[in-house]
Amino acid sequence: MILVMPMNRLGYLKPENFQEHNMKFEFENPTHLVFGAGTLSRTGEIVSRYGKKALLVTGGGSVKRNGTYERAVSSLNASGVTVVECSGVEPNPRISSVIRGAKIARNEGCDVVIGLGGGSAMDAAKVMAAAVNYEGDPWEMIAHGQDNRRLPTSALPIITIPTLAATGSEMNGGAVITNEKTTVKSFVIAKCLYPRVAIVDPELTLSVPQDQTAFGICDLITHVTESYFNGADGTPLQDRFAEGVILTAMEWGPKAIADGENLEARAQVQWASVVALNGWVQIGTAAAYPVHMIEHVLSAHHDIAHGAGLSVVNPAWMRFASQARPARFAQFAQRIFGLSLQHPEDKEAAMEGIDKFEAFLDSIGCPTRLSQLEIGDALLNRYAQDIVKIIHDEEGRLPGRPPMHEADIVKVLRSAL
Amino acid sequence: MILVMPMNRLGYLKPENFQEHNMKFEFENPTHLVFGAGTLSRTGEIVSRYGKKALLVTGGGSVKRNGTYERAVSSLNASGVTVVECSGVEPNPRISSVIRGAKIARNEGCDVVIGLGGGSAMDAAKVMAAAVNYEGDPWEMIAHGQDNRRLPTSALPIITIPTLAATGSEMNGGAVITNEKTTVKSFVIAKCLYPRVAIVDPELTLSVPQDQTAFGICDLITHVTESYFNGADGTPLQDRFAEGVILTAMEWGPKAIADGENLEARAQVQWASVVALNGWVQIGTAAAYPVHMIEHVLSAHHDIAHGAGLSVVNPAWMRFASQARPARFAQFAQRIFGLSLQHPEDKEAAMEGIDKFEAFLDSIGCPTRLSQLEIGDALLNRYAQDIVKIIHDEEGRLPGRPPMHEADIVKVLRSAL
Repeated sequence: MILVMPMNRLGYLKPENFQEHNMKFEFENPTHLVFGAGTLSRTGEIVSRYGKKALLVTGGGSVKRNGTYERAVSSLNASGVTVVECSGVEPNPRISSVIRGAKIARNEGCDVVIGLGGGSAMDAAKVMAAAVNYEGDPWEMIAHGQDNRRLPTSALPIITIPTLAATGSEMNGGAVITNEKTTVKSFVIAKCLYPRVAIVDPELTLSVPQDQTAFGICDLITHVTESYFNGADGTPLQDRFAEGVILTAMEWGPKAIADGENLEARAQVQWASVVALNGWVQIGTAAAYPVHMIEHVLSAHHDIAHGAGLSVVNPAWMRFASQARPARFAQFAQRIFGLSLQHPEDKEAAMEGIDKFEAFLDSIGCPTRLSQLEIGDALLNRYAQDIVKIIHDEEGRLPGRPPMHEADIVKVLRSAL
Repeated sequence: MILVMPMNRLGYLKPENFQEHNMKFEFENPTHLVFGAGTLSRTGEIVSRYGKKALLVTGGGSVKRNGTYERAVSSLNASGVTVVECSGVEPNPRISSVIRGAKIARNEGCDVVIGLGGGSAMDAAKVMAAAVNYEGDPWEMIAHGQDNRRLPTSALPIITIPTLAATGSEMNGGAVITNEKTTVKSFVIAKCLYPRVAIVDPELTLSVPQDQTAFGICDLITHVTESYFNGADGTPLQDRFAEGVILTAMEWGPKAIADGENLEARAQVQWASVVALNGWVQIGTAAAYPVHMIEHVLSAHHDIAHGAGLSVVNPAWMRFASQARPARFAQFAQRIFGLSLQHPEDKEAAMEGIDKFEAFLDSIGCPTRLSQLEIGDALLNRYAQDIVKIIHDEEGRLPGRPPMHEADIVKVLRSAL
């Protein structure tokens, strides 16, 4: 599978701009957030403000087994909203599923689209909502560097109801879609894709198994470490916000893993996951996402969970990146783990902070070595080639701080064997 | 002047609910933020998306003297936007000014309203935009406990351009208005009052004098300490965000005061002031604002700057409140000033943290004693009576943690003499 992430279209900074004081940005997130245990029961009331016939998009598995689907439908029907089902969205949602869902919505005259599930159900629902009235091939709205790309400018009202604490898709305007014919996995970010309402009910995450809970925690933390370590200089308040998300996830994550029925822990973790990618942390950072890029290629080659892959790649990447910019990693060590610094560029403290971060991931049951994912060293060069084929700067490097040559990527992955 | 703050209508928690795990909330902030030095020059481009004839609302003083007004008008005209002037809005904007501005906008057929200035110009502009098509007396939209209150449901598009780092009004849906006939000062919060766009240009704050800069820093810090100390339990991520705003303001504020031309410091302080009251910090806290309530009555009786009054009241209030809840103030001492705690309820550390906070306010030139504001002890009982007359719980106490009897208010103010 080839992944194309058009990060240059998202305005990531070039290395020569990272040292500049920046603090120039635009921001908008119009999603209305409804957060709290039990809010699933408000689905009908909320959706009925936007339409009378809803396309309900799900993966179709766990939400049906655990009764969430039935509860959502009951709530909708009780508020006079007719439900049209679109189940079976894949873990990596395919453009064919998007087209299928959009066709159902069009034929049935749906006037609102609900994504109920993890990131895949929500992402598919978002793009279906835009595809309903999109002229031509919906794949053209996906940002994969093609010349005929046309971003969507309108969509049916979108409602998101996450059942996992991980993705952040419930409160942002992005979606990741795979074209199974060309094996390209890419994404779209557009204003019309922001959900009108995100109904975030931590009760829905009570049934998430320990390993997926841990992977979600790693995922959400990685969302903020990417911008923390790969963003522009001069965003001190965003640093604090990022640290706040990490500290909160590290405090409450283990409680959610130790006792899946701990509703308060589930709520705190889910709230952290919403904030980790709704833009509040990333604002003004113009960040690159090298850890995600590396992980995406790993999970394209191997059947591994996204959060598990991140858990292996992130500490290894951090050790590499800390050599170029020890002060930032020393700050991380100090503020996250309370380590004392001998001086602002204290490399030992920086490394100790990364060790502690890795130990945390290990402690919650996340893998930290490729061998735990049954990935060996046979394809390291291939992964690196794939990654820079997908995204690279003018010098052929993976964007980030620092930008990475293929050899750097191989080195990082080798250190994680 | 009588101040009425309808906090019970905003859903502040009753004392018996503070200990409950909460994490139930709704949130929405649709304002599009354009942040950065030089963004004033984009005013015309941005406003022209919303209208062709703009009511430009200002205090009329400093923005005309320092050229900001002229630059805004030039930008607007260059984009084909005609400007209708509404200058002379008072520091505490009056309902008569709102009515005057709305009349101008109606007569001139303005289709967009711009607030250029401090909180007063922006607040007045917001309410004018709602008053243009409001049936009947615009005062009825202001929330002051009157039975005939009718919140505004629509408004002309609002654009805010702050020239001070303090209020946060540029990116929220609130406005404070005074009825000069009845001497009631109250506020309105409504969805239609969120600005479409906030143009936040830190260059506009370069000319703000040292004392006003310091008062603004105290104001923004107090916005977050109120929810930090008077909000619901169980919002750990909001704690971190609040601490992030405070730490950022304490790091960059003194630099902005030491060198008013330090654009980076101005940018960081202004960004902190936006975030301090755009809802990201307060979300889920359902906070009361006792320090603001006390200060409002002081500034109703005496001609003092809002931020200066807060600077006196806040540390004195903190010493009082810390007795009832030392753990929270110990956390503040630990996380803001790095103090070590002997135990989670360490009252000594809590008090030392408050001392250090007061010393910080003193160091940036803010008053910390009532005597510095030339306020004596003659009217202490009167202030307390006025405060609880304005807002009180079922037991006649000022809401907060803990709720305050009149005698408590007197005690706090006496300790600040």
